Amino acid sequence: MMKLSFLAHAMHLSFEGDDFDVISFAPLKEATPSHISFFSDKKLLEDLKTSKAGAIIVTPEFQSFVPSHSQILLSENPYLSMAYASKLFAHKPFETSMPATISQEVHLAPNVVIGSGSIVEEGSYIMPNVTIGANVRIGKNVTIYPNVVIYDNAIIGDDCIIQAGAIIGSDGFGYAHTKMGEHIKIYHHGNVILEEEVEIGANSTIDRAVFGSTIIKKGTKIDNLVQIGHNCEIGAYSIIVAQAGLAGSSKLGRNVVMGGQSATAGHLEIGDFATIAARGGVSKSIEGGKVYGGFPLTLQSEWLKNNAKLARFFKKN
Amino acid sequence: MMKLSFLAHAMHLSFEGDDFDVISFAPLKEATPSHISFFSDKKLLEDLKTSKAGAIIVTPEFQSFVPSHSQILLSENPYLSMAYASKLFAHKPFETSMPATISQEVHLAPNVVIGSGSIVEEGSYIMPNVTIGANVRIGKNVTIYPNVVIYDNAIIGDDCIIQAGAIIGSDGFGYAHTKMGEHIKIYHHGNVILEEEVEIGANSTIDRAVFGSTIIKKGTKIDNLVQIGHNCEIGAYSIIVAQAGLAGSSKLGRNVVMGGQSATAGHLEIGDFATIAARGGVSKSIEGGKVYGGFPLTLQSEWLKNNAKLARFFKKN
Amino acid sequence: MMKLSFLAHAMHLSFEGDDFDVISFAPLKEATPSHISFFSDKKLLEDLKTSKAGAIIVTPEFQSFVPSHSQILLSENPYLSMAYASKLFAHKPFETSMPATISQEVHLAPNVVIGSGSIVEEGSYIMPNVTIGANVRIGKNVTIYPNVVIYDNAIIGDDCIIQAGAIIGSDGFGYAHTKMGEHIKIYHHGNVILEEEVEIGANSTIDRAVFGSTIIKKGTKIDNLVQIGHNCEIGAYSIIVAQAGLAGSSKLGRNVVMGGQSATAGHLEIGDFATIAARGGVSKSIEGGKVYGGFPLTLQSEWLKNNAKLARFFKKN
Repeated sequence: MMKLSFLAHAMHLSFEGDDFDVISFAPLKEATPSHISFFSDKKLLEDLKTSKAGAIIVTPEFQSFVPSHSQILLSENPYLSMAYASKLFAHKPFETSMPATISQEVHLAPNVVIGSGSIVEEGSYIMPNVTIGANVRIGKNVTIYPNVVIYDNAIIGDDCIIQAGAIIGSDGFGYAHTKMGEHIKIYHHGNVILEEEVEIGANSTIDRAVFGSTIIKKGTKIDNLVQIGHNCEIGAYSIIVAQAGLAGSSKLGRNVVMGGQSATAGHLEIGDFATIAARGGVSKSIEGGKVYGGFPLTLQSEWLKNNAKLARFFKKN
Repeated sequence: MMKLSFLAHAMHLSFEGDDFDVISFAPLKEATPSHISFFSDKKLLEDLKTSKAGAIIVTPEFQSFVPSHSQILLSENPYLSMAYASKLFAHKPFETSMPATISQEVHLAPNVVIGSGSIVEEGSYIMPNVTIGANVRIGKNVTIYPNVVIYDNAIIGDDCIIQAGAIIGSDGFGYAHTKMGEHIKIYHHGNVILEEEVEIGANSTIDRAVFGSTIIKKGTKIDNLVQIGHNCEIGAYSIIVAQAGLAGSSKLGRNVVMGGQSATAGHLEIGDFATIAARGGVSKSIEGGKVYGGFPLTLQSEWLKNNAKLARFFKKN
Repeated sequence: MMKLSFLAHAMHLSFEGDDFDVISFAPLKEATPSHISFFSDKKLLEDLKTSKAGAIIVTPEFQSFVPSHSQILLSENPYLSMAYASKLFAHKPFETSMPATISQEVHLAPNVVIGSGSIVEEGSYIMPNVTIGANVRIGKNVTIYPNVVIYDNAIIGDDCIIQAGAIIGSDGFGYAHTKMGEHIKIYHHGNVILEEEVEIGANSTIDRAVFGSTIIKKGTKIDNLVQIGHNCEIGAYSIIVAQAGLAGSSKLGRNVVMGGQSATAGHLEIGDFATIAARGGVSKSIEGGKVYGGFPLTLQSEWLKNNAKLARFFKKN
């Protein structure tokens, strides 16, 4: 919690109304009168007009759309201002000063570290050199292999299995940019949620959300060395094969299959029961129930036909 | 060891003959009268007819091929039944209740954990925060960098070097599927064998076999962030460059070179002295002694010519 | 330090002049009279003629170019001879027998191991199960997440952030080859330098240099599962997105962007402010200020046009 005046000062911005205590940042839609928010994406103009935020960082151009109950902080680059302020709300990570709550029926191997306020439920089995952050919730019968790292605030559902070296909840790769070309880190305040029966492969990495949650739904299985960007949402019973990479805010339906070394470009949707063949590169939203492949992406059946056409072309030329 | 009747009950299957003590699952070919096996791949019909297994899970269609000395367990989906039962044979991993045998001439850094019954031979050098499972055998003069994880039952040959964060023996990515689209984990009972003078790069992952062994032969060198699937066999003196991925059951000959970010589709063979250029994607078996590239894969010399043809086509059109 | 005669004996080579104490290997250009060097790349002939090395391994063909103040060691394969000898100069890694110097204002979590002679400056925050080697220098206000490994001699600048599981300074993937096809490891004696405000993503790997340094310059941000080869140099304020791979000795200018799963072939230069789209494969040097894509690489605008031309071709054929 910090005064709006303190935040404004840190961002080199000013405001005219009353000072108040700010809990944290929040998106326009979720913000309450105790939150500060920002407007930098014109697609969210309706959210701006109806936001309940106590204060909003905005460019002069859109100042007139800020609701009267919100303080206005004018900035040439609200996203950059938000990046600077996001650091002020960041907590010390992996804090261990307070105890965790471990069920009696939990197997805790040597050299396991569990952060303040975390909970591990009965039947879970945690192997050596695992590091679990603060305020993490580990459900029942969860199996965590050695040297896994789970960042603060993650929620791991019952019966999940996490293979060795996997990283759950690393900072998303998000920066605002100055005119000089410097990258200003956006501190991530969200978390990762694994629903029940999810499996994560060895040395895979799952970034946590900026706000809200990166979510892997029930029964989804992820192979080794897979990258899941911040704010992704993966539907139930999906399969993500080794070395696939999902850019931030990809949204997959249920029973989606992503082949080995396939990828998505982020901020797109893949429908239920879609399959992406190995190496397929998804750069825009696609409907479910079909098999895709290639880069640029096409139907896998087309990709095979096109390769045959190219082979004939190469023979003749 | 458990009674066949107990197993059958767990799989919701029945059988008519005598009950007996089952040691574990095994493939049709390797099974003894104390093993249970399953038939789900029609290519293995000869193995079914000649199997010595004490019991075999089979569809009604193939029931008549089961040898008379084997009990028959009828299942609509033997692979799925096997998946359910595979969990029953799984041991608690990374068990440390019993001592390991460490040679006096071994360097053991702080925070190293070594599981029950494992052996580390003289001259080996194990760095901090390494986790070694149960019944692992580490040979002579092996160098293991920090935060490496070696799963149960692995065999690491003399003079191997394992760079930091590598994972040796993670569960293979294998599931049977229900009609509802759920994925039922196949518990892996095999291991990983690294022969002598193998080097594994930082944060690479090598899955262990379902049954039998994933094998990396003498003198093979593997770079960083490489994925080796379950049951792969890599010949001697091969070179696997960073971020390459080998799908399950790939079989490489000796002195094979796989370039950076190259990949195989699994269940295929690459002949001795073959080279796959960077990004090459191998989707079927190829003979040795040649240089390949592209995806779909072709001879690298063809790939270069084809790119030139395409460049001319783009100029004219 | 060891006698030249000892080294020569280990390499099965002879020399005719006076014996002397050799400090270590060095490239021709940097070698002093207390160093041994080698000549195996004809492009470095000028370096050979002007080297100050106390001894030089050389083929008979180039013997006459060795300066008179240098001892001559004749070898059919100087690179291979150097590989054999490089092992003799290798120190025991991650040595902890001597104390490190930790500022009082440092947060050290449980299970952190820091090697002999390392320095951690004030304000740095080191989380559980981190392993730091010997003679490492960690600057001010550095944040190191759990299970990170930093190899010997690395230098981490002020305000760097290293996400969980990242490996800084792993051995480069370099081998000399015998006539029999064996790979003889070249022990790496260089280090990694991260300048200030660099961020490294989860489970990324950065190899240290053979000689000299792998350098990541000020303010550069690297995402998860990225591979940076030995002796790379990445300019200030660059952005390397997840699963990109830079082969050894790639040299990037400032504000270069490498998209997800992109790659370089090594020993090439990318100019300032160049952008490589996701999956772009850079196989030769390119100038700055442009956007590239595809594999083979072209201007991204061309790549898009070419894809449209191919789509028309596929429709007609």
